[in-house]
Amino acid sequence: MDQVITETKTNAAPSITPDQLDMLVEEADRAKMKAYAPYSKFRVGAALLAEDGTIYSGANVENSSYGLTVCAERSTIFHAVSNGVRAFQAIVVTTDISESFVYPCGACRQVMSEFGNFDVYCLRPNGKVSRTTLADLIPFAFSPSDLSKGQ
Amino acid sequence: MDQVITETKTNAAPSITPDQLDMLVEEADRAKMKAYAPYSKFRVGAALLAEDGTIYSGANVENSSYGLTVCAERSTIFHAVSNGVRAFQAIVVTTDISESFVYPCGACRQVMSEFGNFDVYCLRPNGKVSRTTLADLIPFAFSPSDLSKGQ
Amino acid sequence: MDQVITETKTNAAPSITPDQLDMLVEEADRAKMKAYAPYSKFRVGAALLAEDGTIYSGANVENSSYGLTVCAERSTIFHAVSNGVRAFQAIVVTTDISESFVYPCGACRQVMSEFGNFDVYCLRPNGKVSRTTLADLIPFAFSPSDLSKGQ
Amino acid sequence: MDQVITETKTNAAPSITPDQLDMLVEEADRAKMKAYAPYSKFRVGAALLAEDGTIYSGANVENSSYGLTVCAERSTIFHAVSNGVRAFQAIVVTTDISESFVYPCGACRQVMSEFGNFDVYCLRPNGKVSRTTLADLIPFAFSPSDLSKGQ
Ligand SMILES: [Zn+2]
Ligand SMILES: [Zn+2]
Ligand SMILES: [Zn+2]
Ligand SMILES: [Zn+2]
Repeated sequence: MDQVITETKTNAAPSITPDQLDMLVEEADRAKMKAYAPYSKFRVGAALLAEDGTIYSGANVENSSYGLTVCAERSTIFHAVSNGVRAFQAIVVTTDISESFVYPCGACRQVMSEFGNFDVYCLRPNGKVSRTTLADLIPFAFSPSDLSKGQ
Repeated sequence: MDQVITETKTNAAPSITPDQLDMLVEEADRAKMKAYAPYSKFRVGAALLAEDGTIYSGANVENSSYGLTVCAERSTIFHAVSNGVRAFQAIVVTTDISESFVYPCGACRQVMSEFGNFDVYCLRPNGKVSRTTLADLIPFAFSPSDLSKGQ
Repeated sequence: MDQVITETKTNAAPSITPDQLDMLVEEADRAKMKAYAPYSKFRVGAALLAEDGTIYSGANVENSSYGLTVCAERSTIFHAVSNGVRAFQAIVVTTDISESFVYPCGACRQVMSEFGNFDVYCLRPNGKVSRTTLADLIPFAFSPSDLSKGQ
Repeated sequence: MDQVITETKTNAAPSITPDQLDMLVEEADRAKMKAYAPYSKFRVGAALLAEDGTIYSGANVENSSYGLTVCAERSTIFHAVSNGVRAFQAIVVTTDISESFVYPCGACRQVMSEFGNFDVYCLRPNGKVSRTTLADLIPFAFSPSDLSKGQ
């Protein structure tokens, strides 16, 4: 099914084609099925397109000590970075929530922004998509250059 | 010393008076002196004004396993919430960086936004202050209501 | 009520007196009442005795993004360290679980062990107490000295 | 090169063969090369053998906000669990530290123990290996069953 971008929360132009979006949505949906979410029952999947064209995917992994839970977005980017990738074009995030769009949590925004700015697509199960960017999601981000100034 | 608000990154009106800001800055500076930052050498202090007028403060506490480090903003809000407080007016964050403003990381934005919207003041050692709000720092925040929709 | 140490999971001698234990239990129970645990409904309180005799307390503070939750033990030690304290005698942890003892999660063990070894008392609501130490709870701990070797 | 198990910190019998250990060490070393560790300069790699025979690997991924850093062990297990795997035989962890063994941090012990008990092999660059188990590294672990008792 072709995805429909029904909301745009950024002034930037899209970084990927509709075909690439379809492919990422498929991967994110597949990843969601494998989420380990026994505590929240809130399954999330993500698919990340690297600059070199490779796609990485991941799901949320919860823990009985809630604070050790990881979201799908971070799970995915940790996997990609562990493979030596440091530059990205877009991430797609999918949940089971139909009635509204759900955007990444602040921790995931921070972890993704360590690797620059890229597109973020949030997907509802009914195929609706909201498009934005990391720069829009975490303005004035705390960044590697801030850290070095303080040292 | 009276603080000078030299930058404003929000359309909202200030939530506190100049005298309250001075008091919070003093507390945040005092907390910064007690930071445990042997790894980054990056000391941060924070002071948080609750709706009931009480002030809570905290500093960053690092760990040899970097991922277990907590920032000053979270250290402070955890302390306040542990005391039963759930509503806040403003937080002041202070570092040792003079050349630019440093804003809270994404994890701290998320943790603070669990308790609604309030003013965020970022302070440079030279007395310059940037004023913004949580709502501006974490637009489309993932929130308690999102979680319940997914369950 | 005098606490009864019904289990001992360490070979080390107790670091505190029965009166000190009673005082810490009272503080931990009081902190538990203020826990912010809307997601797990699992309230935890902690009280920490510093080497200088001061007592710090805290509770768990959860987040709609589960991974940003903090446990009572970390909440408490972050508060104490933010106050400049770096050396501790004992921590008491209390929950609502009667049927068995609950020990700190791995993240809390790591954060506490950054500041050396001290006694850990886990309390059931029925007054039963299990006594152990951090060194017993996190053998071969990853420590500040490990980090410096790698750098 | 065949690995030599020079230290054993558990009473349990090994869960894998020397050939399997060699294979895991190779994968963990390869992963270490891709670590993103600009802040600590402390590179770590891990390789995880699932019950079904598949191997997953990962490295540490740091963040300018130190608290959002993930260790190699967690990076690896998040990747495996995101692939639907829930049962494991052994993990190998490798660093650049020759003079002593380095064991997983408390957060990683907790995250791994969510999925039961398995062997942990810590490797020095000189080929020396220390063998232990999760059950030995995190005694009286906080577990899924504890959480459900409190609810
Ligand atoms: Zn997240
Ligand atoms: Zn932060
Ligand atoms: Zn904990
Ligand atoms: Zn770790």
